[in-house]
Amino acid sequence: MAIVLGPNRYGKAETRVVRVTRDGPTHHVKDLNVSVSLSGDMDRVHLAGDNAAVLTTDAQKNTVFAFARKHGVGEIEDFALLLARHFTDSQPTIHHARVEIEEYTWNRIAHQDGPPRPHSFVRSGAETRTCLVHSDGTGGAESVVSGLKDLVVMNSTGSEFHGFIKDEYTTLPETDDRILATAVTARWRHRGDPDDWGRSYCEARGRLLDAFAGTHSLSLQQTLYEMGRRVLAGCPEVCEVRLAMPNKHHFAVNLSPFGLDNPNEVFHAADRPYGLIEGTVADDAGPTPGPAWE
Amino acid sequence: MAIVLGPNRYGKAETRVVRVTRDGPTHHVKDLNVSVSLSGDMDRVHLAGDNAAVLTTDAQKNTVFAFARKHGVGEIEDFALLLARHFTDSQPTIHHARVEIEEYTWNRIAHQDGPPRPHSFVRSGAETRTCLVHSDGTGGAESVVSGLKDLVVMNSTGSEFHGFIKDEYTTLPETDDRILATAVTARWRHRGDPDDWGRSYCEARGRLLDAFAGTHSLSLQQTLYEMGRRVLAGCPEVCEVRLAMPNKHHFAVNLSPFGLDNPNEVFHAADRPYGLIEGTVADDAGPTPGPAWE
Amino acid sequence: MAIVLGPNRYGKAETRVVRVTRDGPTHHVKDLNVSVSLSGDMDRVHLAGDNAAVLTTDAQKNTVFAFARKHGVGEIEDFALLLARHFTDSQPTIHHARVEIEEYTWNRIAHQDGPPRPHSFVRSGAETRTCLVHSDGTGGAESVVSGLKDLVVMNSTGSEFHGFIKDEYTTLPETDDRILATAVTARWRHRGDPDDWGRSYCEARGRLLDAFAGTHSLSLQQTLYEMGRRVLAGCPEVCEVRLAMPNKHHFAVNLSPFGLDNPNEVFHAADRPYGLIEGTVADDAGPTPGPAWE
Amino acid sequence: MAIVLGPNRYGKAETRVVRVTRDGPTHHVKDLNVSVSLSGDMDRVHLAGDNAAVLTTDAQKNTVFAFARKHGVGEIEDFALLLARHFTDSQPTIHHARVEIEEYTWNRIAHQDGPPRPHSFVRSGAETRTCLVHSDGTGGAESVVSGLKDLVVMNSTGSEFHGFIKDEYTTLPETDDRILATAVTARWRHRGDPDDWGRSYCEARGRLLDAFAGTHSLSLQQTLYEMGRRVLAGCPEVCEVRLAMPNKHHFAVNLSPFGLDNPNEVFHAADRPYGLIEGTVADDAGPTPGPAWE
Repeated sequence: MAIVLGPNRYGKAETRVVRVTRDGPTHHVKDLNVSVSLSGDMDRVHLAGDNAAVLTTDAQKNTVFAFARKHGVGEIEDFALLLARHFTDSQPTIHHARVEIEEYTWNRIAHQDGPPRPHSFVRSGAETRTCLVHSDGTGGAESVVSGLKDLVVMNSTGSEFHGFIKDEYTTLPETDDRILATAVTARWRHRGDPDDWGRSYCEARGRLLDAFAGTHSLSLQQTLYEMGRRVLAGCPEVCEVRLAMPNKHHFAVNLSPFGLDNPNEVFHAADRPYGLIEGTVADDAGPTPGPAWE
Repeated sequence: MAIVLGPNRYGKAETRVVRVTRDGPTHHVKDLNVSVSLSGDMDRVHLAGDNAAVLTTDAQKNTVFAFARKHGVGEIEDFALLLARHFTDSQPTIHHARVEIEEYTWNRIAHQDGPPRPHSFVRSGAETRTCLVHSDGTGGAESVVSGLKDLVVMNSTGSEFHGFIKDEYTTLPETDDRILATAVTARWRHRGDPDDWGRSYCEARGRLLDAFAGTHSLSLQQTLYEMGRRVLAGCPEVCEVRLAMPNKHHFAVNLSPFGLDNPNEVFHAADRPYGLIEGTVADDAGPTPGPAWE
Repeated sequence: MAIVLGPNRYGKAETRVVRVTRDGPTHHVKDLNVSVSLSGDMDRVHLAGDNAAVLTTDAQKNTVFAFARKHGVGEIEDFALLLARHFTDSQPTIHHARVEIEEYTWNRIAHQDGPPRPHSFVRSGAETRTCLVHSDGTGGAESVVSGLKDLVVMNSTGSEFHGFIKDEYTTLPETDDRILATAVTARWRHRGDPDDWGRSYCEARGRLLDAFAGTHSLSLQQTLYEMGRRVLAGCPEVCEVRLAMPNKHHFAVNLSPFGLDNPNEVFHAADRPYGLIEGTVADDAGPTPGPAWE
Repeated sequence: MAIVLGPNRYGKAETRVVRVTRDGPTHHVKDLNVSVSLSGDMDRVHLAGDNAAVLTTDAQKNTVFAFARKHGVGEIEDFALLLARHFTDSQPTIHHARVEIEEYTWNRIAHQDGPPRPHSFVRSGAETRTCLVHSDGTGGAESVVSGLKDLVVMNSTGSEFHGFIKDEYTTLPETDDRILATAVTARWRHRGDPDDWGRSYCEARGRLLDAFAGTHSLSLQQTLYEMGRRVLAGCPEVCEVRLAMPNKHHFAVNLSPFGLDNPNEVFHAADRPYGLIEGTVADDAGPTPGPAWE
């Protein structure tokens, strides 16, 4: 046996940067959570505590803030690429950078019965937009995965579940009408840069929602596949979609002990356990992912 | 010394009931978290484990589900009052009921470029509407407190902070321009029933937002007071407003080591510690609260 | 109607201070979360944004750190009193201080098969010790409430539940053997200072555990009362105990569909809903609490 | 472009099972969180909603409970293997099973100044033991990864950090004395079954703690590597260790504005951002992992 150092990375996680862009009295806000991970010539720091090849995580954090000032924050994919290339291009010991960003949305507060206010905002609270970028530096391999998480959706009908295996531990009754609810985590890998990351995001998000709502579902897997398929069908820049969708069970409450029927109107929203459906839908002619999903 | 039983209550907390109302293909959804607490003749259960006066918390949960079926869930204040009165009126040993409800909002998913779908929904994710009801039963004392929590708002300018005490531990510089951000928890006590709890809620919420956004702030306390004042001024059914507002600090990052200025454009959103401002604004001629806020 | 400012307070919440005391190579660690709230002449800051009476929350944070250096952190009750008195005594506009502290416990890491190491620690992860102090300043009214939270305990037998009310919504079967599990939040008010807050805490905690484990329970209320009674009986400096205990339901799983019995051996640990039992046990000759519990 | 179904799996997550084993009055408790994921012939359920190959997640949950009764729960690795093999062996459509288990530790409550009680327990609250098992069924490929998470440790001295890259965004001062604190997530892959999973776990855990405490650290990477190395060196059944260790920053507070020095005695425990160090230490002659870590 020879003990060796295997894959490793390090960086500053969860730098919370808020960037205000002032256009006269009108302000624009970007609210991000940025996590950087770097890898490269890191044998000596692991084996001997020699930090000569280490760009400190504190400097990584400073870079995030400084770049937000110098370059602004446009679409998160662009900002992540800018940061990733900077680390690999500027440091000979850093061969690979991974940048992950979460974006939280703020809406403008409007005057009562009037126009939006110029510098007052309310957090939308809805889903979080995400991206994950890998880069080996300018001229090297790069990948961009966009996505969202915590998009909580429900169909109050239009979902069936039957025809499944009945083994000795199966007691679940079949049903032709149930609530289907989930919190979508979706990520999609690009084969190249779209013209506009923001427009691409909106298109993909719209298709996810439309497929969830528009699919008469015989299983959550069928809905998941259709959601991925619809993104691929409408977003030519996307080559692979990965989805994780918990089945947030809503159990129709048995009200018969109280002399009441329950025609799928009263449900108990359960916490745990929950089903968890994970799947990939891809263009089989797309480029190989490399480390894109790591 | 004589050891005695003091104030006590018990109940079922966090029953998660989802009520679907079917109007042909069009469904309406109410998504609630209901917590019940009862008190009354509870000496013997504490002193001797005699449960003769105890309505089980399991039965309380069943009642929530059964009432959702029988009576529907309209405005949460009405549903809370219905439940509270039921417990006190139906059980001679129960003299007081406290019902707390959180409501989560779902929006309809729309067809792409089309009308809203009839039974597909997305969680808004924004603030949670709340109510807290106390009742001694039909004919007895009752109180209703409505509210919201996790309404996250930000003014990116229009906030100053100066003129404060400078003691030996004060190092904070004065400022005439800062970000003011908070997560509002607001609760307001009613002097009587409004015609429509939902309309009253919207009016109060709109006034909170409008006051936050419209107040040029010299301190978060000033903003808090103005928010409460505006609710009282416009909602005659409200006699008291209580607000808790953390000062979610956004620190302008010092970029001078990197040769950059920072004209209040790049901020670090800090987690802890945070300021916490709590205050009450009331009609001094309003009725006394009794246990309304407990 | 005249709109007036009611009760209010403000301060710095959740200052996370870690104090290391170096005794040669041997270190001692105190890990605290300190929240300060002050009240006093705060009309003008609310009504006009005039901060002349305001000690900034930033200065409060600085004071916590500076006092940790100057005075050290002994027992949290002593540190909270020191801070509270400082704010009221040093600022004429501050008439009342409330200081709340959580303490997280670290244990020493031992050499394998050897003595404890002098400056290496592992978080115990068990319950959190708490205190809540109110002070009107030296010579004024003061109160000290000590406590703990998240003390998670379970009796796997020795708990019954029967003889309760059977109304039309009661379906729960009676049982003479169930799991009783809870996460104890306990707070106890002192009639005066004990000689040693740490020893007093250990005595109270031990009695809570002993009462929980040693009580054959006919209801969680009975157990709660006995826990409070045992603290009062053994800690003469304590005059009132308040307990909040969720009934963390463990449901025996029905295994009969699989041809298996279940003699209370396999349980589903449910999340929500849960019972919640809250109660007070007090010396009826004790001093009145004033704002001690706020 | 041809849209195809890629890798996928589904199952029941977070079944919370508590298993009591009764040995006369003495009870033994196992408290687990079990997550099952299955994969196999799942094309038709995704493409057409045909569930004929689907073992319901409800049946998976039932199996967890039933097996806890029939076979008991010994070491979590054994229980996970038993479940995984059952799913693949009993269902022709299921070709691969992944079972992940978290175990929460309970300690016996002792009589005051006396022996442990037979059926009363307190949650230790410390780190969580974990395992992750993959199986293709009896005779097929299998892997077992054991681990722990949330092991929070601190060295209050014996940590230096200097000699790192100074780029234009580096402002961090070098230090020869700092607090090193982290929450260890460690997982180790086995080359084969040890005689006793429990004893193996204790040995690995002890070595992790001993290496953390006993390493004079020049960087967190060095500590991480030494922790992995020590597990490999002492646990011959382990062939690979993966560690993720956030650098939980403790910043020495600058007290000079208050006329105080701070010889590394008063620290601010920060939340975000934090460093995050991830690394692998492996026997380079070990077997290839296959899907062991997924």
